[in-house]
Amino acid sequence: MVALNKLIKEKFVFLLYFICVCTFIQAQSAQIDKPKFKRHYYIKKSVYEALPNTNDEILFVGNSITAGGKWAELFNDLRIKNRGISGDVTEGILFRLDEITESKPLKIFLMIGVNDLSYGLSVDSVLQNYKRILENILKDSPNTKIYVQSVLPVNDNFDYFKNHTNKGELILELNRKIKLLAEKFNLVYIDLFSFFVNEQGKLKEECTFDGLHLNGQGYLLWKSTIEKYIH
Amino acid sequence: MVALNKLIKEKFVFLLYFICVCTFIQAQSAQIDKPKFKRHYYIKKSVYEALPNTNDEILFVGNSITAGGKWAELFNDLRIKNRGISGDVTEGILFRLDEITESKPLKIFLMIGVNDLSYGLSVDSVLQNYKRILENILKDSPNTKIYVQSVLPVNDNFDYFKNHTNKGELILELNRKIKLLAEKFNLVYIDLFSFFVNEQGKLKEECTFDGLHLNGQGYLLWKSTIEKYIH
Repeated sequence: MVALNKLIKEKFVFLLYFICVCTFIQAQSAQIDKPKFKRHYYIKKSVYEALPNTNDEILFVGNSITAGGKWAELFNDLRIKNRGISGDVTEGILFRLDEITESKPLKIFLMIGVNDLSYGLSVDSVLQNYKRILENILKDSPNTKIYVQSVLPVNDNFDYFKNHTNKGELILELNRKIKLLAEKFNLVYIDLFSFFVNEQGKLKEECTFDGLHLNGQGYLLWKSTIEKYIH
Repeated sequence: MVALNKLIKEKFVFLLYFICVCTFIQAQSAQIDKPKFKRHYYIKKSVYEALPNTNDEILFVGNSITAGGKWAELFNDLRIKNRGISGDVTEGILFRLDEITESKPLKIFLMIGVNDLSYGLSVDSVLQNYKRILENILKDSPNTKIYVQSVLPVNDNFDYFKNHTNKGELILELNRKIKLLAEKFNLVYIDLFSFFVNEQGKLKEECTFDGLHLNGQGYLLWKSTIEKYIH
């Protein structure tokens, strides 16, 4: 009877062990299968990868706010290429940095971070990724001139993107730290924030229809602010 | 008593009439206030309106499928401008046609209709709007060469955009009628559909990640198909 009990116990322990191993394997394969980013991200990444590399590229890298700018048209300059992806985050930029540095671009205008904050990431986590982005660009394309652009202010007077437009305070903190980071790397920091903020500390209402994205007037203001760095 | 009854009846009829008028006025003003299109549409419209008109523009006009193409970059030609708006429909194109014809563009490549179908519009309703689009372009900019592009096939093997990807049959019918319309207006009809369809009558899987939008390979195929019309 004791021997039988022991046998059952052993079998039970083995079964338990087997279940644990199976669960672990399943979790691992799920981790492999599950895409890190949204479908839209992979579509745009594939579009950018399919485009030819050219000389002296000037890349605008960022999220939907960058993606919404018709940069080559605004500056009448075919060297300028849009590498914005709607919804992108610092990790997303890191994950597609090879396509960005591959052509050894002349200049990169970078703006990223507001989506990270909207997902609840801490300022220091965003900054850690930001640092890795700068390090990797400088490692893979040391002659590229990087322009670090501040994150823009948001405006919570609109009924859109509430998870973004309530991050006004965090954006201030993030920009302070991005500026220090840019200085540490000896890069140009462009304080767009100051040009886009109104007296209430919010994104100027004439520049937006939703408190987060820019309208036509917004892009014209952006253009006038960075024009001197393009040519 | 009869006189009193009559008075009450008259007052009641007046009150009923008053309520009707108020309801009508309210409905009218609601109609005026309610925007016709999504916020994103107005943002992009404003961005396109803010950009300068130039000579010999070649405009790509349509919805997200057009918007996703980096046309100037693909063809290495600064005359080419993207006028796609994600989610756009035939009525949306009509509503922003002034910005499109204002520069008297050299060429327009038009692709529109799949979102109309996804909203349940009949093929004939889409066609009616399509006809108005062509009429208005030809009226406002008679020297513009219009290239009428077929709607692309869709593929329902993906778990995205189910209201679009189940419209395969309607797309066939719409394209047949768009082709006839183009012929009636004596315009070039570009049968992109045939280049993008697989043996199952669906959008080629190597050209898409979601059954509706194109990936990098998809845009390269589009480019090779229309290249002869650009130059």
